[in-house]
Amino acid sequence: MIKVGIVGGTGYTGVELLRLLAQHPEADVRAITSRKDAGTRVADMFPSLRGRYALAFSEPADAGLNSCDAVFFATPHGVAMAQARGLLAAGVKIIDLAADFRLKDPAVFEKWYGMPHTCPDLLAESVYGLPEVNRESIRGARIVGNPGCYPTAVQLGFLPLLEAGIVDAAHLVADCKSGVSGAGRKEEMSLLFAEASDNFKAYSVKGHRHHPEIVQGLNAASKSPVSLVFTPHLVPMIRGIHATLYARLSNTSVDLQALFEKRYAGEPFVDVMPPGSMPDTRSVRAANVCRIAVHRPQGGDMALVLAVEDNLVKGAAGQAIQNMNLMFGLPETTGLTALPVLP
Amino acid sequence: MIKVGIVGGTGYTGVELLRLLAQHPEADVRAITSRKDAGTRVADMFPSLRGRYALAFSEPADAGLNSCDAVFFATPHGVAMAQARGLLAAGVKIIDLAADFRLKDPAVFEKWYGMPHTCPDLLAESVYGLPEVNRESIRGARIVGNPGCYPTAVQLGFLPLLEAGIVDAAHLVADCKSGVSGAGRKEEMSLLFAEASDNFKAYSVKGHRHHPEIVQGLNAASKSPVSLVFTPHLVPMIRGIHATLYARLSNTSVDLQALFEKRYAGEPFVDVMPPGSMPDTRSVRAANVCRIAVHRPQGGDMALVLAVEDNLVKGAAGQAIQNMNLMFGLPETTGLTALPVLP
Amino acid sequence: MIKVGIVGGTGYTGVELLRLLAQHPEADVRAITSRKDAGTRVADMFPSLRGRYALAFSEPADAGLNSCDAVFFATPHGVAMAQARGLLAAGVKIIDLAADFRLKDPAVFEKWYGMPHTCPDLLAESVYGLPEVNRESIRGARIVGNPGCYPTAVQLGFLPLLEAGIVDAAHLVADCKSGVSGAGRKEEMSLLFAEASDNFKAYSVKGHRHHPEIVQGLNAASKSPVSLVFTPHLVPMIRGIHATLYARLSNTSVDLQALFEKRYAGEPFVDVMPPGSMPDTRSVRAANVCRIAVHRPQGGDMALVLAVEDNLVKGAAGQAIQNMNLMFGLPETTGLTALPVLP
Amino acid sequence: MIKVGIVGGTGYTGVELLRLLAQHPEADVRAITSRKDAGTRVADMFPSLRGRYALAFSEPADAGLNSCDAVFFATPHGVAMAQARGLLAAGVKIIDLAADFRLKDPAVFEKWYGMPHTCPDLLAESVYGLPEVNRESIRGARIVGNPGCYPTAVQLGFLPLLEAGIVDAAHLVADCKSGVSGAGRKEEMSLLFAEASDNFKAYSVKGHRHHPEIVQGLNAASKSPVSLVFTPHLVPMIRGIHATLYARLSNTSVDLQALFEKRYAGEPFVDVMPPGSMPDTRSVRAANVCRIAVHRPQGGDMALVLAVEDNLVKGAAGQAIQNMNLMFGLPETTGLTALPVLP
Repeated sequence: MIKVGIVGGTGYTGVELLRLLAQHPEADVRAITSRKDAGTRVADMFPSLRGRYALAFSEPADAGLNSCDAVFFATPHGVAMAQARGLLAAGVKIIDLAADFRLKDPAVFEKWYGMPHTCPDLLAESVYGLPEVNRESIRGARIVGNPGCYPTAVQLGFLPLLEAGIVDAAHLVADCKSGVSGAGRKEEMSLLFAEASDNFKAYSVKGHRHHPEIVQGLNAASKSPVSLVFTPHLVPMIRGIHATLYARLSNTSVDLQALFEKRYAGEPFVDVMPPGSMPDTRSVRAANVCRIAVHRPQGGDMALVLAVEDNLVKGAAGQAIQNMNLMFGLPETTGLTALPVLP
Repeated sequence: MIKVGIVGGTGYTGVELLRLLAQHPEADVRAITSRKDAGTRVADMFPSLRGRYALAFSEPADAGLNSCDAVFFATPHGVAMAQARGLLAAGVKIIDLAADFRLKDPAVFEKWYGMPHTCPDLLAESVYGLPEVNRESIRGARIVGNPGCYPTAVQLGFLPLLEAGIVDAAHLVADCKSGVSGAGRKEEMSLLFAEASDNFKAYSVKGHRHHPEIVQGLNAASKSPVSLVFTPHLVPMIRGIHATLYARLSNTSVDLQALFEKRYAGEPFVDVMPPGSMPDTRSVRAANVCRIAVHRPQGGDMALVLAVEDNLVKGAAGQAIQNMNLMFGLPETTGLTALPVLP
Repeated sequence: MIKVGIVGGTGYTGVELLRLLAQHPEADVRAITSRKDAGTRVADMFPSLRGRYALAFSEPADAGLNSCDAVFFATPHGVAMAQARGLLAAGVKIIDLAADFRLKDPAVFEKWYGMPHTCPDLLAESVYGLPEVNRESIRGARIVGNPGCYPTAVQLGFLPLLEAGIVDAAHLVADCKSGVSGAGRKEEMSLLFAEASDNFKAYSVKGHRHHPEIVQGLNAASKSPVSLVFTPHLVPMIRGIHATLYARLSNTSVDLQALFEKRYAGEPFVDVMPPGSMPDTRSVRAANVCRIAVHRPQGGDMALVLAVEDNLVKGAAGQAIQNMNLMFGLPETTGLTALPVLP
Repeated sequence: MIKVGIVGGTGYTGVELLRLLAQHPEADVRAITSRKDAGTRVADMFPSLRGRYALAFSEPADAGLNSCDAVFFATPHGVAMAQARGLLAAGVKIIDLAADFRLKDPAVFEKWYGMPHTCPDLLAESVYGLPEVNRESIRGARIVGNPGCYPTAVQLGFLPLLEAGIVDAAHLVADCKSGVSGAGRKEEMSLLFAEASDNFKAYSVKGHRHHPEIVQGLNAASKSPVSLVFTPHLVPMIRGIHATLYARLSNTSVDLQALFEKRYAGEPFVDVMPPGSMPDTRSVRAANVCRIAVHRPQGGDMALVLAVEDNLVKGAAGQAIQNMNLMFGLPETTGLTALPVLP
């Protein structure tokens, strides 16, 4: 049984970790912290957890995190790097769902997140937790930087094309759409029901923090330097990311369907759909899977990739547990086999 | 392992049975029928099932239902009663999610469903599948009539008051609200997104088929004859029923909270919430639970009960599996412990 | 041309006033105040107003409100009563969309709004702005307290029954449902899209501020004292209120349809629908109308009234303009004839 | 007063024409046809029209269309071309909101719509009703083919770039998102609330009928041949189209903001937003306007255009009335000045 701690459990990734870990046969959530809500029982804040969690939020200092086997950070950026060294010293493995251990270059981190990185040595040691790319490194890692929601879908969608070197890497387009939970459980005007419902818009067109993370991952796979236009949009739905990816083919003789199927053969959580498919986000709702379809519109020289995931599962908490399974030598799918909720 | 067949699996209760049964450790879905879609793989119609079901819809005649241990009917009304005798003769146990075995009086059935009941003897034998009322009878039943979605919530909400005989049974009000999936997977104008979204309305005010079913159940519990005004409304959400129940107290000295807690003590799927609670439907989304709160507004002589459930789970497929568990001597909660999906 | 000022225009009633007044042939919006957003052009905050308003929000002191003919308060409670005396002295007519001039008894106001009433003399002078009840008084008023959204629908629905004295006034039930904009443009967790969407719940069951306002209005019409259970619910839609009203008939021989039609004959903004109707909220979206249907379920002794309105129009800004029209001697429908937006 | 007839008024464009024409000071709707619903009053089908339309649907033969001045076709494809010759002979002007008079090449029409064009001479005479391109021709036209919803937004967004000849016309990408009303008022499974809500997906990736229409329009403006990847997506909202357009700049020294502002200077229904804007669909809800913002992400060589419209107004009924105004010599904005409904 893995003793699990969660730092910062009052957001959507926190409650999703609680939901998924309750169904994980090898995990035992021992502590969950929240400065603001210390003393409140998690089931009082989230009645969906009633009857399954007696646990209350605790002050970080009182949580006994050092005696855990694994600690998840479901916090704002900057928290994990402040606590990582101490936890590692106590033998705790860390999975950070924020951005502290995603960007390998501390200067890039500082530019996009507005704070210096305080433990570049640990950053260097950490592993980017995209199992479909870094599975073996994750198994041996002490710290995993869990990928962002957009980066998971966009990387999984572009990787086969870039690894094969058959597209113009300098002119990629990722037109992405996210449900509102992707913005977190924050009291912001633009996230109100009366603002976001029955509406659709682009946002962060000038630059989104997931941009450098995506480019870092794509560059690692690409034979030539990547340049990407990334346009996020807000969809009036709770969960779900849909990435619509465009890349100009430098080689139109490749069988794209076969390429994708081969790349993800054996992957338990990537589903390459049959030719002609158009995956919908609800087909992955609440489940740890990314479904992908690849098209060549009108048989032209553009590849079109459609990738969907649940931003809170394969895009956050589910992938974090997938990483935990790898780090602790469990079968990768442990606790992650529940089917999507449809309708 | 229980060999399971599903008749009519292309609707929402059908796909919900498939979702829940995939996670049931003692059930093996062997057959699923659909005349219209025979030959189509269930995972092609519902991509959420990809990778977990190789099964295809089959013609009823080819489905081998007679060799199943249990058959669920997720069909329009009238289908189960046509096939029940043959299946029973083959030793199959039946759980009907339609109305054929809900109304004990064949004349009432005929009045509300517009067709005569073709096997009144089996109707007499059948058990109404509300475990919180009929648990012991269900254990021994060969045929269970699974309750409707509204009747489950309304009965669970009113029962403690009626059993205690402390309300005016002749003037009950059930103001109920349902998500759109409650109407089924039907191509009807009023169910279109562009009609039902950003909208709210009452429907079937003149008489809803769940009315006689509710009254039958309440009368069985009440010390005096029940008369009920039942007003269903359509909510722009996918899943969920919220019953707001009003009953005039003939005795205002009873501790309502204690009454409800005592009535449902030990019930695995009924959650009496703390005083002052206002349950929301998402707190039960995708899970087999009914949450109930009881109030006495302004300390007056009216009891107000709020009850929520997922119409497809505790209001349909989940309760059906709960009944299956009872009929086959399994622990009642087997396969039904997944937590609600929130947000 | 009526020179109009709006105090506190950054909320939903503020922007709705701007939308409706832009189409009003006799109104000219001269000033709109907001301390927080002074200097921002209204069209920059609400792009829907682009090209039609050059106006910017101004500091209250700089707004020149004293030179307006009419000032609307679309503010939190307490603001209008602080500024009313000065404006009246300058000859300005006041329409308060908050609660300062709704409750005739200052003690009741203080109890529910947590602040003493600072100008009880003006409160005594003010008129409750429900034209279907107080039309003549409104014409002569200097201050109008514009009704709340729930109170408008509930009063219009119950009034014919109470005026006729044919129901048990001591056991009224108002089961009400509101779109999320009714809660205002406030950064609150429970109003987030990811919290309120695909969800339904009751709220403020212990006591809602509109309760005393409704009771005050109903008592004025009723032959016997009113007691009301009022249960508000939150619907995942932007606009719209649906009131489902229950009253036990003391006289079942009255033709309810005729009663309602007669009561509202000639009313430009109350639509009594044909027998059997079930109005939906979208049928009044963005328009100044309340549609009402009356039923007697199963021919029993309960009257059921269904009333819908757009909470921002007939429930707020539209009714406020209707009052302005009356106060300035204009035809009551001036500027309020745009049809509802459906779908 | 223009005597107006509407053929096929039971769909969303039909009821939107009725809504808008009710507010048009120079239009008088004399007839509206529907074979299926002849005899039903329009206000009984659409209660939002109650009190403003006494009109009932009539059989086409009985509608007296020949005595109208203008007839709108809000019908499936193929109906307008069957009736056009007769109406023209009677001196009636025609505005077709279906596709019969959009595609100039009858062979292209036949390929995409599966029926031969039966009046190629009238097709040759007809004018494509995009006023921002063909204003003068529309003024003199007897038949106008009203543009499709996607084509309006995509053309308005790309035109300035193509007319200036500063982009690679051979690799345009239009990633488009539409509310569900764009699919029409049709009883289709995929349009059900329980299917389309809380969900997002691409559709018609293999080829959408608006593709050739867009390409025809863009080619007319472009200095070099256009090739376009067009990916439509379904958004869980009622109204609204958001076009996200990508074009590689062949000339990066052009001031894109100035280019767009100059192109649409004086256009009453195209709003070029300030630099950095991200228009949302609700900012045009229910109004006849297309808002456009142009970006150059990261200062690179890609132009990004964001264009929004209400698919039922500027994308259908509103634009049709704009065309009617032009055809009858009225000010172009007559009856089209109502502000968008926000929230």
